[in-house]
Amino acid sequence: MKYQHIKDEAYKANMQLPKLGLVLFTFGNVSAADRELGVFAIKPSGVPYEDLSPEKMVIVDFDGKIVEGDLRPSSDTLTHAVLYKHWEIGGIVHTHSTYGTAWAQSQRDIPNYGTTHADHLTADIPCAPPMSDEMILGDYEYQTGFQIMDCFKDKGISYKEVEMVLVGNHAPFSWGKTADKAVYNSAVLETVAKMAYLTEQINPGAPRLKDSLIKKHFERKHGPNSYYGQ
Amino acid sequence: MKYQHIKDEAYKANMQLPKLGLVLFTFGNVSAADRELGVFAIKPSGVPYEDLSPEKMVIVDFDGKIVEGDLRPSSDTLTHAVLYKHWEIGGIVHTHSTYGTAWAQSQRDIPNYGTTHADHLTADIPCAPPMSDEMILGDYEYQTGFQIMDCFKDKGISYKEVEMVLVGNHAPFSWGKTADKAVYNSAVLETVAKMAYLTEQINPGAPRLKDSLIKKHFERKHGPNSYYGQ
Amino acid sequence: MKYQHIKDEAYKANMQLPKLGLVLFTFGNVSAADRELGVFAIKPSGVPYEDLSPEKMVIVDFDGKIVEGDLRPSSDTLTHAVLYKHWEIGGIVHTHSTYGTAWAQSQRDIPNYGTTHADHLTADIPCAPPMSDEMILGDYEYQTGFQIMDCFKDKGISYKEVEMVLVGNHAPFSWGKTADKAVYNSAVLETVAKMAYLTEQINPGAPRLKDSLIKKHFERKHGPNSYYGQ
Amino acid sequence: MKYQHIKDEAYKANMQLPKLGLVLFTFGNVSAADRELGVFAIKPSGVPYEDLSPEKMVIVDFDGKIVEGDLRPSSDTLTHAVLYKHWEIGGIVHTHSTYGTAWAQSQRDIPNYGTTHADHLTADIPCAPPMSDEMILGDYEYQTGFQIMDCFKDKGISYKEVEMVLVGNHAPFSWGKTADKAVYNSAVLETVAKMAYLTEQINPGAPRLKDSLIKKHFERKHGPNSYYGQ
Repeated sequence: MKYQHIKDEAYKANMQLPKLGLVLFTFGNVSAADRELGVFAIKPSGVPYEDLSPEKMVIVDFDGKIVEGDLRPSSDTLTHAVLYKHWEIGGIVHTHSTYGTAWAQSQRDIPNYGTTHADHLTADIPCAPPMSDEMILGDYEYQTGFQIMDCFKDKGISYKEVEMVLVGNHAPFSWGKTADKAVYNSAVLETVAKMAYLTEQINPGAPRLKDSLIKKHFERKHGPNSYYGQ
Repeated sequence: MKYQHIKDEAYKANMQLPKLGLVLFTFGNVSAADRELGVFAIKPSGVPYEDLSPEKMVIVDFDGKIVEGDLRPSSDTLTHAVLYKHWEIGGIVHTHSTYGTAWAQSQRDIPNYGTTHADHLTADIPCAPPMSDEMILGDYEYQTGFQIMDCFKDKGISYKEVEMVLVGNHAPFSWGKTADKAVYNSAVLETVAKMAYLTEQINPGAPRLKDSLIKKHFERKHGPNSYYGQ
Repeated sequence: MKYQHIKDEAYKANMQLPKLGLVLFTFGNVSAADRELGVFAIKPSGVPYEDLSPEKMVIVDFDGKIVEGDLRPSSDTLTHAVLYKHWEIGGIVHTHSTYGTAWAQSQRDIPNYGTTHADHLTADIPCAPPMSDEMILGDYEYQTGFQIMDCFKDKGISYKEVEMVLVGNHAPFSWGKTADKAVYNSAVLETVAKMAYLTEQINPGAPRLKDSLIKKHFERKHGPNSYYGQ
Repeated sequence: MKYQHIKDEAYKANMQLPKLGLVLFTFGNVSAADRELGVFAIKPSGVPYEDLSPEKMVIVDFDGKIVEGDLRPSSDTLTHAVLYKHWEIGGIVHTHSTYGTAWAQSQRDIPNYGTTHADHLTADIPCAPPMSDEMILGDYEYQTGFQIMDCFKDKGISYKEVEMVLVGNHAPFSWGKTADKAVYNSAVLETVAKMAYLTEQINPGAPRLKDSLIKKHFERKHGPNSYYGQ
């Protein structure tokens, strides 16, 4: 019973994905971590959302070892494990949401074109380059975690400020303090991805948002002087 | 109990936004004014739509001072206050609806391409330029109201005839005699924005609607000889 | 009670429009004719779909004169009357459906790019040119009917084979032997309009469907040797 | 009662099409085969999905001869029959889903741009060329089956690895070991078609997925060392 709280959290967060239109069939997964216990609960692999229950969540430690559960965990489990091990986060989401995936396939960062984007992050949404053949042929899902972390190092951005990424040729990942917040970020990414796509169609020369406005909107919602919400 | 009528009106109008597909999460707000009392009821900041009730609406005067309510009002409250103070309107809506926001990010007016547009306004839907750094660093939401009003002055258009605007790099605002009418205008803007986007994709040289047809359609629905509706 | 059958037919057909996603608010109308009685039942003007009932339908003759009903009929009533007067049809639909309207605003015929189109008509979906100032300033809705008929004459196509049209800068009209069939055609037009738009985006040089395939698919569903359906 | 199992299977699979948003009206059909009995159950022609029942499914043999059933089978029945006769498959789906059909009308293969695609097939989704006049004027639906098989021969791909195809100017077909799997493939095709369309809009120079990543993702889900699912 010691893991019930994260099983519940992971279950509820997973069930948000179809409601928010972010997944087709089983193309997505959410995990919820208990950092003190050093484990996370994650969706079992290939199980349809309508068949899920908290009991079916699999408990895995930050090295990717299964701690509890009868089912095989998500095939992306090692990516989650690596990120939990190195980053102080409480929830992770992976989807193949349509617009986010199209940007990932395009191998482009999503430019910060407006306040909807700046309300959530100041940077462009980064697109990690496709992985090297060596990484792919090695422990692929494990290396995907490092590909994401390397991208953040190379671009000099912090996972605490930018809680989402595209993996080139693949699809989006997002995270947050909780699984619920990670799902929220996943939906934000999809909406911002759609708006940025449309913006470029309507005005191919549309400029990025200027710094003063990026700063203003981000600080309305985040940081010491934020004044959004209750 | 003196404000119950505008709390009810604001509540009902806010609840229309998710039904019409105009908001994700809490990215939008509606207010309803009682111009005689000099106050308006507005959505509390960051509260999910499914948790709203008329009692949670916050009463604010036209200078932006909170008159009644336990919750913090929408972060955009001062924009609403400025518009109510200077314009004789009864309801205001702000959303980040997808197509409207894409045009705002493109910093382009939405051209009047057809009768769906002309049924509601004769002009292009104006896009106010992004705000100056001075305005952004000052009282941002308060200045947003002036940015909108300045745009209407510069373009020589009347807020009584054109009940909607895009704020450059940001998103749409709309208004009307009632909160319900403002929500209606918000949905019209989103539909017209999508149609105009598609029109330019299908025919990059599509001409604006000619004046005789603009006038005809607008006057079918508005003005002394209108004959639409009951 | 003499008109109850067409009131019922018009009511049911009108209620299909929001279900099929073809209308926002009240931007559409359907009528159902009894050609023996020389009248049609049509939606009242500006009444929301959720407030409709068979009793609210208005009975109008083929010259546009109201025969029965307490409400004002659709503002487009005279267009329906003209078409019923000159063409042997039993139902008419007008919508501002998104993709159909975008093509109308683009002032382009919708090319016959595939079998989905050819299953329903052999020709491109015609776009009537925007009306002359004289027609607009005259009896506008009445003249819209003639604009549609003139378009068919000019292009040498038959309203019995092509049961839909775009009015340039305005929006689609469709018709059929019954109101139900006219609604069906309205949904077909919207789907074909979306597919044709996407086809041109994916392959700007996409060719029209060749004649043998157009003929084959049309004749599968229509004509003496059709073998589609029961 | 000997065919009840495939009638049930075909009925359930057909009912998935409207739920997954893959059909408008009756523009699609699914069949389910019993290869030992040498027959398949298929949707009756032109019957709306809401009026279907297992009993209305028509039983047809692999030469296209009706074995049991009061209704006329789908007009595409001979295409199903030919494929069952020559390929060892258990279910077939035909739809006019929007994005898949737009690619078919564009007469282009859908390039393998990302892992969503590679999770299901390594090749591009092939587009068979439009049929010759001779084939069209002959036994059209019968010849459509051969057009599909010829396309696979010409491209040197296997129907066991690539379970979907576009027929040029027409629309998608998909298949699988069961009718349910064929429907799954139909939804995958539509999603991949939409993502590929968006990818080319966002980055006209987007490269195909590299071979190592195609191989990795396909083998995660398929083949002797797959580790996806339970």
